[in-house]
Amino acid sequence: MQKSRAERLMENAGDMDAVVIANDGEPFLDSAFWYITEQTSGTFEGSFAIVRKDGSMDVVVSILEEEGAHDGKGNIRVYHDGKERAQFIRDALKGCTKVGFNVNNVTYAAAEYVRKTAEGIEIVNAANAIGETVSVKDEKEIEATRKACAISSKVAGEIPDMLSEGVTEKEVASRMDNRMRELGGTGNAFDTIAAFGPWSSQPHHMPCDYALKQGDAALFDFGTKYDRYCSDMTRTVFLGKPPEVMERAYEVVLRAQEAGIAEYRAGAKANAADLAARKIIDESEFKGKFIHSFGHGIGQDVHQHISVSPKSEHVLKAGNIVSAEPGIYIPGVGGIRIEDTILITEDGCERLTSFDHSLTVV
Amino acid sequence: MQKSRAERLMENAGDMDAVVIANDGEPFLDSAFWYITEQTSGTFEGSFAIVRKDGSMDVVVSILEEEGAHDGKGNIRVYHDGKERAQFIRDALKGCTKVGFNVNNVTYAAAEYVRKTAEGIEIVNAANAIGETVSVKDEKEIEATRKACAISSKVAGEIPDMLSEGVTEKEVASRMDNRMRELGGTGNAFDTIAAFGPWSSQPHHMPCDYALKQGDAALFDFGTKYDRYCSDMTRTVFLGKPPEVMERAYEVVLRAQEAGIAEYRAGAKANAADLAARKIIDESEFKGKFIHSFGHGIGQDVHQHISVSPKSEHVLKAGNIVSAEPGIYIPGVGGIRIEDTILITEDGCERLTSFDHSLTVV
Repeated sequence: MQKSRAERLMENAGDMDAVVIANDGEPFLDSAFWYITEQTSGTFEGSFAIVRKDGSMDVVVSILEEEGAHDGKGNIRVYHDGKERAQFIRDALKGCTKVGFNVNNVTYAAAEYVRKTAEGIEIVNAANAIGETVSVKDEKEIEATRKACAISSKVAGEIPDMLSEGVTEKEVASRMDNRMRELGGTGNAFDTIAAFGPWSSQPHHMPCDYALKQGDAALFDFGTKYDRYCSDMTRTVFLGKPPEVMERAYEVVLRAQEAGIAEYRAGAKANAADLAARKIIDESEFKGKFIHSFGHGIGQDVHQHISVSPKSEHVLKAGNIVSAEPGIYIPGVGGIRIEDTILITEDGCERLTSFDHSLTVV
Repeated sequence: MQKSRAERLMENAGDMDAVVIANDGEPFLDSAFWYITEQTSGTFEGSFAIVRKDGSMDVVVSILEEEGAHDGKGNIRVYHDGKERAQFIRDALKGCTKVGFNVNNVTYAAAEYVRKTAEGIEIVNAANAIGETVSVKDEKEIEATRKACAISSKVAGEIPDMLSEGVTEKEVASRMDNRMRELGGTGNAFDTIAAFGPWSSQPHHMPCDYALKQGDAALFDFGTKYDRYCSDMTRTVFLGKPPEVMERAYEVVLRAQEAGIAEYRAGAKANAADLAARKIIDESEFKGKFIHSFGHGIGQDVHQHISVSPKSEHVLKAGNIVSAEPGIYIPGVGGIRIEDTILITEDGCERLTSFDHSLTVV
């Protein structure tokens, strides 16, 4: 019989007696809660999934979630007040000492609440155990990601038609978001970045009222969710002929992406991809202008667990889904980034997103 | 001279030597970071705003945010690596012992990182100080909220035209989201709830493929952001004549909302509104069917600080923005909720959202 998600988690959890996945109030909700419970609906604020060594799981939820909660996995315990909630948490952690928490995805208040409620427990860091578990996707998860990628790829293809002199970043971002939803996306994977001209040199620029000019780069970093799973991609195009330096930067980024993706396969260290791409950029005239990592894991969160950076020790596994996104950023001039969502396979990798990667002048 | 936001925060912070507002990775970002820094762009992952007793503030950000960060308030310190980040945090907290954290809005990892980095500090709970500060809105914040409310109110008025037999929850939710963006909203304040027929008895139902039938209630809880500020409203309508019990429930909810709103004014305890509304419902045939609070604060987060519940001790202040959202939920039959966004004023309150509150049969 296939192992449950909770059982796989505890295999990764070493000597922990239990793992607690805790939601505080929105937006401080941990996507691992939906992963482990396989709930499909609800917000589950103030809820706790508690997995014990044997893979058994209590899911402690408020009465607001009672009707929906029984669709998911685990032993559902519905509390009506704080006293009952505390009792359910004590019951679930009875006899446990080393208790793992997803420390980057739980609030200080929620972790301390559990520690004080279940007397005698010690908070240990379960972020890696949880990250390793959620990073190996099953067929259902890959299928959802494929659908998310197909939707955003279609919109990537429509970008040139959305651009003309004077259109603003906000206008194009809004049209792209609407199109992703029309095509069946269930909401943005993250706030769409649309960055024109000089703004494109800021990797995390938020769309503003800047109007597109001739010669500007237009950089779009965007993704949708489908059944909770994210796509993530970046396309950079130009309105009219760009400065030659930007054309050269585009070609270097494209070669860097190819070089990085060539290193993506099960068993490879994630940093190999970053280093291969960075070498291309640092051996060009754009040395030092690639100021972020080559990639990151993608799942129910658009940034999930895996770091594809120069120092990453992560060993890629079949079923990992990661981005490939080199960039060159020239302050005051503009930036180029090209990004795809990639599935790691036993003998290589597969691009889940697709668009015309050649230099496109609208 | 008007006090800065940082100065107002420290007035509310009692004997704390400093307050740290820390962002971890998305979505574990604290909206108070944008409030206190007045940054308009960027994601500011791994960033820290550190306010000292005198209201001076260091804003420690990664190089990814360097270009954007200088638009905001405070002394911007851009780190290039973890060692530099740690040094900036130690510098900012030099001589501090009692350091406040927004414990429900900071990850366990981020709070522990600061505690270990700035040796000798004690983590204290600054959630109330921060909540009280952000809950009293200035004119600029109220204006942004008005715009968000105007956008969602317009969409509320369009709901009847979107409904017909067979349309699904997902379809209508998607159309509403698109309309809010077309009208100038900068993204959903939260995932739109569209709940038809029996699903409407689940307060937090997520839109599914259920198709609207004659006699169904159709409940929509939605809001948009405008310049980071949220609106929040709920409209429940019917397709064709509903069961009589639902008509009676609608009238009771409407009376409960009026009774609650009549208690909203500066100086009043927030629980008075909840109790007034709850009394109406509990004296009707629907006793016990109002299973959540009457309201909550609204700001950059759609649920912000203030609780309008039976036990709330919060005293309302002019400039508070709160929801007014009684409901009746009958499992297997359906639910009714009516909600507006309300501004508290010196002598009463003002509804910022508007729609036809009378029982509407499409």
